[in-house]
Amino acid sequence: MRRKSYAEMDCSVAQTLDIVGDPWTLLIVRDALRGVRRFQAFQDRLGIPRNTLTDRLQRLVDNDILARVPYQERPVRHEYVPTKKGRALDGVIISLMRWGDEWGGADEAPVVLIDRDSNSIVDPHLVDRNSGRPLSEIRVRAVDRADLR
Amino acid sequence: MRRKSYAEMDCSVAQTLDIVGDPWTLLIVRDALRGVRRFQAFQDRLGIPRNTLTDRLQRLVDNDILARVPYQERPVRHEYVPTKKGRALDGVIISLMRWGDEWGGADEAPVVLIDRDSNSIVDPHLVDRNSGRPLSEIRVRAVDRADLR
Repeated sequence: MRRKSYAEMDCSVAQTLDIVGDPWTLLIVRDALRGVRRFQAFQDRLGIPRNTLTDRLQRLVDNDILARVPYQERPVRHEYVPTKKGRALDGVIISLMRWGDEWGGADEAPVVLIDRDSNSIVDPHLVDRNSGRPLSEIRVRAVDRADLR
Repeated sequence: MRRKSYAEMDCSVAQTLDIVGDPWTLLIVRDALRGVRRFQAFQDRLGIPRNTLTDRLQRLVDNDILARVPYQERPVRHEYVPTKKGRALDGVIISLMRWGDEWGGADEAPVVLIDRDSNSIVDPHLVDRNSGRPLSEIRVRAVDRADLR
């Protein structure tokens, strides 16, 4: 049986990939979370074909990840601002970044995360909210919620 | 200027996407990290076309994310086992899952993570290793390392 869409699989990973599982889309989200707002700025940074960028931005707006906000009246011009749902993707972007930092072959991470308030370097890692233990120390098993009952 | 590859961009996010930035690839990695090992098992679970699966598995082996290990002599049959580099992708998979859990539209997460040792539910979130603070409470800025000096 072929599936029409990853979202049909009962899995949050698949649902997320159905929305943002395209390299250009994730790079646009990365840039938006770093403060890029305007079509031309995305285009300049990414070297993405204009029609591809138009398509991906529209999809991100349709999925409520970016909001299209006018910044000029005549002629009307818009910028793209991450929504709350879009800002919540920072964990995905950071996880992709950290894996690339560690396994991408460079001697050191090309980009460093800084706390805007304290100016100190931020070193994100996953911990279990319940026990406080790093995920790397926990042997995790994924269980269908239906099987828990 | 068009780029040949996301990896040419000096960014770990782009480097990671260059290797795993394909929805099928990430779903194969997800299943491999959940214990799926054999070609037919991936095929059955994902409903992925066989030639696409062959191609993606080969790419994952070439990138040292899965190791191809024989489990039968005559005829020779292989299974695909995550390497250390592959297991390190669990943070990416978990982040995709958590975003889908929160924003995918379902009332509750379809899949739950369990600590194999204590059987308790694991609730992963990102914290700063240095300060212990949740990333969600930190206003983070991404800075080119070269600009730090």
